[in-house]
Amino acid sequence: MPAPGTFNDRLRAAITEKESRLCLGLDLDPERTSRLHGDNLDSLQEAARLIVDATCDLVWGYKLNFAFFERFGSAGYAWLEELAAHIGDRAITIGDAKRGDIGNSARNYAQAVFGHLHLDAVTVNPYMGRDAVTPFIADPARGAFILCLTSNPGSGDFQRYPAERPLYLQVAAWAERLNGADNVGLVTGATHPDDLAGIRKAAPSLPFLAPGIGAQGGSLEQALAAGTNETPTIISVSRGALYAGQGTLEDIVAAVGDYNRQINDLA
Amino acid sequence: MPAPGTFNDRLRAAITEKESRLCLGLDLDPERTSRLHGDNLDSLQEAARLIVDATCDLVWGYKLNFAFFERFGSAGYAWLEELAAHIGDRAITIGDAKRGDIGNSARNYAQAVFGHLHLDAVTVNPYMGRDAVTPFIADPARGAFILCLTSNPGSGDFQRYPAERPLYLQVAAWAERLNGADNVGLVTGATHPDDLAGIRKAAPSLPFLAPGIGAQGGSLEQALAAGTNETPTIISVSRGALYAGQGTLEDIVAAVGDYNRQINDLA
Repeated sequence: MPAPGTFNDRLRAAITEKESRLCLGLDLDPERTSRLHGDNLDSLQEAARLIVDATCDLVWGYKLNFAFFERFGSAGYAWLEELAAHIGDRAITIGDAKRGDIGNSARNYAQAVFGHLHLDAVTVNPYMGRDAVTPFIADPARGAFILCLTSNPGSGDFQRYPAERPLYLQVAAWAERLNGADNVGLVTGATHPDDLAGIRKAAPSLPFLAPGIGAQGGSLEQALAAGTNETPTIISVSRGALYAGQGTLEDIVAAVGDYNRQINDLA
Repeated sequence: MPAPGTFNDRLRAAITEKESRLCLGLDLDPERTSRLHGDNLDSLQEAARLIVDATCDLVWGYKLNFAFFERFGSAGYAWLEELAAHIGDRAITIGDAKRGDIGNSARNYAQAVFGHLHLDAVTVNPYMGRDAVTPFIADPARGAFILCLTSNPGSGDFQRYPAERPLYLQVAAWAERLNGADNVGLVTGATHPDDLAGIRKAAPSLPFLAPGIGAQGGSLEQALAAGTNETPTIISVSRGALYAGQGTLEDIVAAVGDYNRQINDLA
C-alpha cells in the first residue's frame, strides 16, 4: 500500500525520512553466502529476512534483482514474493527486472511486478520503445527506472552508438518526455562519471538510480553531483555491502552506515 | 536433453522432421480463453497441455512468453516449469523472456532458462551489450534470438535510430559476429517487410524468428523470403492460432495446419 503522492514524491520523502539515499541490492549469491548462511534456499530466505530486519530503518530502499530469484525457478519466485511482503511498507522496493516487451506482454509484466508483488518501482529496458514502457508508468504512485547508461562493460556496445549523438542521451531525453506523472527515473551507472552531467542536461526532471559503486568501482562523488534535492541520485549497492568484511549481519549494518555517511557528506 | 549438434543445427533438423517452420506461442490470456477453458490457473494449465498434445507433431516448436506466466507469480512460474516439462523433447522450446542484464545477473537468468527450465533457446535484449548476451550462448546446443527489429509500434523509437545507420542493423552485424558456435538468431518482426533484406545482408549466417504475423498484420511472404535453407525464418504465431475460429482445440489444430501449408508453399 503506497503512501500518497507520485512515485518520485515518495522517493524524495523517503530520503528525508530515512536520511539515506542508499538502495541496498538483495542479490544473495549462494556461492558467496554459503559460508555464513548455507547455500540452500531456506538458508538464503532466512538470511535475506535477517538482513532486511537489521537494515530497514537505515536504508532508503531495497533493490530485488529478479535474476537471483529466478535461478531457483518457482521456488525462487515464491521467495521473491515472501521477501517483498516481508519488507512491506518499511522501505521503497525496486524490482530490478529490466523487463521490456510489446504492449500486451508489458501489461502482464506490470501486473506481476505491481499487481502481484506490490513493489514500488521497476527497472525497464527501452530497446522496444514506448509501448514497452508505458504499462509500467500507468499508476503515478509506482515508478519505472529506464535503463539509460548502464554500469557494465558492454554498455558501450550500443548505448554509445553513434558516438556523435549517442543512444543513451536519446533515451534520457525520451524518458524526460514520459515523466508527465512524475514517476519516471533513469538507471545511470556510476562507472561513467564523465557522462552524468550530459544525462542530467537531457533529463532535468528525473531522479537517477546509480549502480556501479563498490564491486564495480564507480565514483560516488560524481554520481551524487549529478543529483539535486528535487531530482536526487539514489545509490544502489549490492555486493559492496552484502559481502563487506566477513559478511556477518554486523558487517552489513556497518557497511550500510559507512555508505550512508559517505553519501550524506557528499550529497 | 537436447539432440546432438549446435542449436542452429537442431533448428534446421526440426524443420525437416516436422515439415514445419511454425513456432506456436503459448500466450494464453485468461480474459480471452475463459469462455472455453475457464479463467483460473488450473483451467489454463489444462488448456495448455491439451493444446500441446494436439499440436506437438505439427509444429516446429513452442514459444513460451514469460510475461503470461509471471502475471500469476510463483504459481505461474510453476506452470511454466510444468508446461516446459510436458513439452519435453517433442518440440523445440523458446523461452520468450527478453532478458538482458549485467554479466553475473545474465548468468543467473541463463541458469533459470537452461539449467532449471531446460528450454532450448531464449530471446535476449541487446541494449546492455556483450556481457548481457554471452552467458546465453555459452552452450552451443542452446540458442539465443537477439532482439533486432521488433514487431511492435514502439520499435521505431530507438531501433531505427539514427535514420542513416540504424541501430537494428548494428545489432544484426554484431549478432553475426557472436555466432561462432552456430547458436545465435535474430528476432525480426514480420511487420517490417521492407527492412528484412537489409537485415539478411548484415547477418548472413543467422536464422530469423519472425513474430507479427496474424494479429499484428505482418507479411508472411516477405518474412519467409528473407530466409534460406541454411538460415531459415521461423514464423511465430500466438493469438492468430490460439484464438482462431471459436478457439476450440479443433480450431487451433486447423489454424496450425493452415499456417503450415501457407508457410511451406512460400518457403
